[in-house]
Amino acid sequence: CSSTTPITATMFPGDGIGPEIAESVKQVFTTAGVPINWEEHYVSAEIDPRTQSFLTWESLESVRRNKVGLKGPMATPIGKGHRSLNLTLRKELNLYANVRPCYSLPGYKTRYDDVNLITIRENTEGEYSGLEHQVVRGVVESLKIITRQASLRVAEYAFHYAKTHGRERVSAIHKANIMQKTDGLFLKCCREVAEKYPEITYEEVVIDNCCMMLVKNPALFDVLVMPNLYGDIISDLCAGLVGGLGLTPSCNIGEDGVALAEAVHGSAPDIAGKNLANPTALLLSGVMMLRHLKLNEQAEQIHSAIINTIAEGKYRTADLGGSSTTTDFTKAILTHSSIFL
Amino acid sequence: CSSTTPITATMFPGDGIGPEIAESVKQVFTTAGVPINWEEHYVSAEIDPRTQSFLTWESLESVRRNKVGLKGPMATPIGKGHRSLNLTLRKELNLYANVRPCYSLPGYKTRYDDVNLITIRENTEGEYSGLEHQVVRGVVESLKIITRQASLRVAEYAFHYAKTHGRERVSAIHKANIMQKTDGLFLKCCREVAEKYPEITYEEVVIDNCCMMLVKNPALFDVLVMPNLYGDIISDLCAGLVGGLGLTPSCNIGEDGVALAEAVHGSAPDIAGKNLANPTALLLSGVMMLRHLKLNEQAEQIHSAIINTIAEGKYRTADLGGSSTTTDFTKAILTHSSIFL
Ligand SMILES: CC(C)[C@H](C(=O)O)[C@@H](O)C(=O)O
Ligand SMILES: CC(C)[C@H](C(=O)O)[C@@H](O)C(=O)O
Repeated sequence: CSSTTPITATMFPGDGIGPEIAESVKQVFTTAGVPINWEEHYVSAEIDPRTQSFLTWESLESVRRNKVGLKGPMATPIGKGHRSLNLTLRKELNLYANVRPCYSLPGYKTRYDDVNLITIRENTEGEYSGLEHQVVRGVVESLKIITRQASLRVAEYAFHYAKTHGRERVSAIHKANIMQKTDGLFLKCCREVAEKYPEITYEEVVIDNCCMMLVKNPALFDVLVMPNLYGDIISDLCAGLVGGLGLTPSCNIGEDGVALAEAVHGSAPDIAGKNLANPTALLLSGVMMLRHLKLNEQAEQIHSAIINTIAEGKYRTADLGGSSTTTDFTKAILTHSSIFL
Repeated sequence: CSSTTPITATMFPGDGIGPEIAESVKQVFTTAGVPINWEEHYVSAEIDPRTQSFLTWESLESVRRNKVGLKGPMATPIGKGHRSLNLTLRKELNLYANVRPCYSLPGYKTRYDDVNLITIRENTEGEYSGLEHQVVRGVVESLKIITRQASLRVAEYAFHYAKTHGRERVSAIHKANIMQKTDGLFLKCCREVAEKYPEITYEEVVIDNCCMMLVKNPALFDVLVMPNLYGDIISDLCAGLVGGLGLTPSCNIGEDGVALAEAVHGSAPDIAGKNLANPTALLLSGVMMLRHLKLNEQAEQIHSAIINTIAEGKYRTADLGGSSTTTDFTKAILTHSSIFL
């Protein structure tokens, strides 16, 4: 193990199975000797009895100060009169790009082999503006907002990502044949950025056609960049190709170099506290966080240990058809790879 | 053949490969003795040299009068300052529900077996309102409109369809966790209608999750009903599961009993006029039209002939990996089934 001064990172275990899978990550990181001190914060759909709030100023300040964090699932408090905490975090921390790699896990069979896609989602505006109102009884409208600023920065992020990760193509996903002004502006910004990256192939694909092509032949795509709602839809579709949200990591990128890695699956209240949850998405999100911190060696070691454990197939949680507990699966990761011995 | 008085139906061959695939339909229908007289109208992305317009009043009147028609692909004239002809037809004829069955074609292998889904798309409002504007430089917005009236009528259509077609479940697809007012109203209307159909199982599925479930296991769904843009996206995704838009039919349902069946694939200008186009989607759309007209016997005969020709695999067009021309494939359909002999 290296003897770097430890890095402080924020941890939001979240709701439901969140604490259990967060425990798994902490254990794997500790055993691997990752030089991270976790600053744990309680952010939940339930009011914190200690602070009488869902999300405290301290929790946000923690990420702002540490500039890096890992987040478990947070339930969306439906009908409680306030917005999803997931969205609040994105907004408050200005997390403008959500990066979701989707790749086939060796040994875990789905209908698709060798999927290797990166979806990059604009994460702050679009259909998520929260601006809606009733015009007259029985007629409601919602506003989709696209700005030049947010479109340029996510496009810039996507092309920069492609370039620095050895990717060859960026596809901008849109419906500008219908929303000529909003999606049209998004495309215009993508084109402007594309000009600066002549080594990256740039193309534009209408979202309906993109979905059809993805299910027919995902190898047609490489990096996909798109407005908020399309990113929500396409990233879940892509996750489905390789087994679902329980297996796919994500990382939110903010201004000022903030990175909040996040497992985007649900909080699974039905199995919470039963030691049945699959920690893979949060573990792989943790790996994205380590890469962001340039702790590449440990990132790759942990990544291999996770991948190999799943590939071996002996220890799998129930969602993958196995019967391992969260702790058994975690132990298998710890003992699997020689690097931890 | 029965000796019913012939029915007059409108035919819009459309652009690109449209005329060739329309020819295939006319030939098959004639040979099968379908009692239809076609009233053919020129509606195209190119200005009609005779009428100096894209879409004439006569063309619309023809559908309104006949109450039934078949439509080939129409190119969307990009940047010509007017809306897609497809959308204009939907709007002018008040085609409020777009029905797209997606089912696996025997003998044509994809990654999915036994897909059997019906997507029913609200076809007149939502994100297709055409209402967009620039707020200030670099900030644009578009309006999504959901009305009680349009939501109720498409929900009613979906449940009625389910009931009369032996379907068991209707899933309403939405993003009401984000667009609580617009998609919320859509769901409210679906729930109201669901109450009247206690024999049909009703469920609500968030669009991102729906896409993930569809690619993992399409058998989880039966009839899906949704606002306009989600319908656009999901119907293409579903088509992709069974081979693409070249193989899937659709029919638009309007007020006053109007039905305009439609092949929703593109006009494929690159292969237009070369006798290479696959007429399957338009043929199957024609079958939907026949069923709508209660010409059930001929509908099923033609349907079997198409399905059997594809299943046999000897005559397939290039898009399906074969080398047949449009006319050869059509001839194969004509000679394949004993009913035509
Ligand atoms: C929970 C929900 C508000 C959220 C979203 O729509 O963005 C989720 O689907 C996601 O993708 O993170
Ligand atoms: C061509 C386009 C305007 C159209 C749509 O978006 O509805 C098409 O994708 C469809 O599904 O019929």
